[in-house]
Amino acid sequence: MKSAVLILSGGMDSATLMYHLLAEGYDLRCLSIDYGQRHIRELVAAKELCEILGVEHKTAPLIGINPLFGESSLTNREVDVPEGHYEDENMKVTVVPNRNMIMLAVAAAWGISTKSGFLAYAAHAGDHTIYPDCRPEFIEAMAKAIAICDFHGLELIAPFQGLSKGEICSIGLELGVPFEKTWTCYKGGDLACGKCGSCTERLEAFEFAGAKDPLPYEVDYVPT
Amino acid sequence: MKSAVLILSGGMDSATLMYHLLAEGYDLRCLSIDYGQRHIRELVAAKELCEILGVEHKTAPLIGINPLFGESSLTNREVDVPEGHYEDENMKVTVVPNRNMIMLAVAAAWGISTKSGFLAYAAHAGDHTIYPDCRPEFIEAMAKAIAICDFHGLELIAPFQGLSKGEICSIGLELGVPFEKTWTCYKGGDLACGKCGSCTERLEAFEFAGAKDPLPYEVDYVPT
Repeated sequence: MKSAVLILSGGMDSATLMYHLLAEGYDLRCLSIDYGQRHIRELVAAKELCEILGVEHKTAPLIGINPLFGESSLTNREVDVPEGHYEDENMKVTVVPNRNMIMLAVAAAWGISTKSGFLAYAAHAGDHTIYPDCRPEFIEAMAKAIAICDFHGLELIAPFQGLSKGEICSIGLELGVPFEKTWTCYKGGDLACGKCGSCTERLEAFEFAGAKDPLPYEVDYVPT
Repeated sequence: MKSAVLILSGGMDSATLMYHLLAEGYDLRCLSIDYGQRHIRELVAAKELCEILGVEHKTAPLIGINPLFGESSLTNREVDVPEGHYEDENMKVTVVPNRNMIMLAVAAAWGISTKSGFLAYAAHAGDHTIYPDCRPEFIEAMAKAIAICDFHGLELIAPFQGLSKGEICSIGLELGVPFEKTWTCYKGGDLACGKCGSCTERLEAFEFAGAKDPLPYEVDYVPT
């Protein structure tokens, strides 16, 4: 049986990847990372999704390294979360330096100790502009490092790297992903704000897929 | 001025690299990693070395991810630390899965947020047999990933990757590294044990360099 460790943030992309890999017959373990993100609610979402599907889940507590990240608005409460589109210049403040490499490195350790065959993460094409660690060339370099970091070979897979978030949303709807249980908003309040870059992108993805997001929002979405 | 983040374990290799980089004119920040290692004493050594030299030092607390590592004798107190040479088959139990990638990923985050130019670590040729994540091909793949993981480019350097531990010892002696303040023994007792793979390698390095290790040992070293 194909076994994989999946990095599960609790957002819609990694949740969809979880359903996709299970449908493909993978034996899964899911790892979430607590890096001190403001939207800690996503970790609750990740845990709940794994409980629903009976998948082993661990959360790696990395909040202690938060001071190394500097001024990211996702981890530093003194920096505001910007509103608008991912493409906007002000959105760069949501970058957490090297977050994906850290997550991949920690998840790979678990993959090695459990002798899994694969390590999966849900990088997708929509993230490339703002997040350098979602680009295909980064994934390729990490795949090479992960394949040789131990005598036990581990294959990195990122099946959604060529897809837009809208396309991922369509796949998730087909697979029956309970999107009302996923969490996307960077602000992490009681309701999703509907205005931050992450909410905006999610709402546009549902618009692309021709469906209504089942998650309640603070404000009604008005397509631009 | 050239600025670098150096991964400083507190052992003799990274201590020598610290002195080497300072001699080369680098502005340094040193990062140590608490991954739940049995030989936690090395972190005390790292801190003390930085205090002596007036170098900024942080310790990243990663002990929480310890359960992901499985059966390594360096982190799991129920697994004995083996005695003998690194080349011995039983020494594989001292491998901490993907330790170097995790350390590099976390240190790179600090390098990015402080806009450092370089990330340095003290991988050396003697480690290749047992630690896959010290091999040149691993360093090369990581260098590529680290260069593109952020819009701020960071260059990975491992100046000792072609040297033996004996050669590093010779360099350290020339540079005046206070080796009595470094810590190597995997067992982490009051005195270095002189028998584990790490002690054995250190003592052989001093023998190569034609010097006496200033560190006190539980047993007298008898060269083989």
